[in-house]
Amino acid sequence: MNPGKEKAAMKLKTVRGQIDGIIRMIEEDRYCVDVSTQILSAIALLKKANIDVLNAHIRSCVKDAILEGEEEGEEKIEEIITIIDKYIK
Amino acid sequence: MNPGKEKAAMKLKTVRGQIDGIIRMIEEDRYCVDVSTQILSAIALLKKANIDVLNAHIRSCVKDAILEGEEEGEEKIEEIITIIDKYIK
Amino acid sequence: MNPGKEKAAMKLKTVRGQIDGIIRMIEEDRYCVDVSTQILSAIALLKKANIDVLNAHIRSCVKDAILEGEEEGEEKIEEIITIIDKYIK
Amino acid sequence: MNPGKEKAAMKLKTVRGQIDGIIRMIEEDRYCVDVSTQILSAIALLKKANIDVLNAHIRSCVKDAILEGEEEGEEKIEEIITIIDKYIK
Repeated sequence: MNPGKEKAAMKLKTVRGQIDGIIRMIEEDRYCVDVSTQILSAIALLKKANIDVLNAHIRSCVKDAILEGEEEGEEKIEEIITIIDKYIK
Repeated sequence: MNPGKEKAAMKLKTVRGQIDGIIRMIEEDRYCVDVSTQILSAIALLKKANIDVLNAHIRSCVKDAILEGEEEGEEKIEEIITIIDKYIK
Repeated sequence: MNPGKEKAAMKLKTVRGQIDGIIRMIEEDRYCVDVSTQILSAIALLKKANIDVLNAHIRSCVKDAILEGEEEGEEKIEEIITIIDKYIK
Repeated sequence: MNPGKEKAAMKLKTVRGQIDGIIRMIEEDRYCVDVSTQILSAIALLKKANIDVLNAHIRSCVKDAILEGEEEGEEKIEEIITIIDKYIK
């Protein structure tokens, strides 16, 4: 597996554990602010996993497409811009 | 359980399913852009779960504290501002 | 003027100066990455200004409405949740 | 000027006008929620301007560097990932 994707998969497994923990916190009726803080922490880790995936993508697909030719590069750049755009909103 | 928290717990269970799906996508070496899109979708749902929790918090704890007295209200307002601040960054 | 709003106004004036600087950077065809970094800095300051405004709002309007009565409080809480929701997306 | 940068400069001029308007709103002690909504609108437009700048950057500098050689491409990709990372946090 691509090392960027592997790193992302590791982070996603940690997030899954965090989510399980948050669901338990809610079931035990823990303090809202603590629940909210844990959700923020899971979001932050998901964002890092996404960076790993985008990193892998730019370093392989986008780069290869640019080296392949004008048109292929154009298409992949368009795609990555669309993702960054969705990400940022 | 508080209805806001219950709604959050439901969303978190959906997110857990999404995370499992994303881990599988990576293991099957699926296209990065599709993986990234799914991660963004999980982040969006986690944010909605967090809104449910904050909503529950403001409607119960913060409101009650404000009705209890100057100092109690002050403290809870400080706390909620800190969360919103962390959230937005 | 409300002190929270005054702090927000100060920050907004700084942002205005930053925006002028960024427009000049673009006109002088400066390096994209430097332009992007400056835009991120302006966004971060605008977010802080918004926190000042929300802080002022919760400490005055929302708090007063909650103290006024069930219905008034309900309405203001609904409004602040809607803002936090828009903010976070 | 690069068309992407030109589009960004146009948006930044609009943002400057919005900021002026928001400062006036605060001076006139307008309703916090309306001020906050306007700040959110300015942030959204700044994000779009940043996308224009990043778009210009990837289509020119990053692409050219990748075509120039392994090392040059590597360096620019590293840089763009760092920006996306800062952006997303």
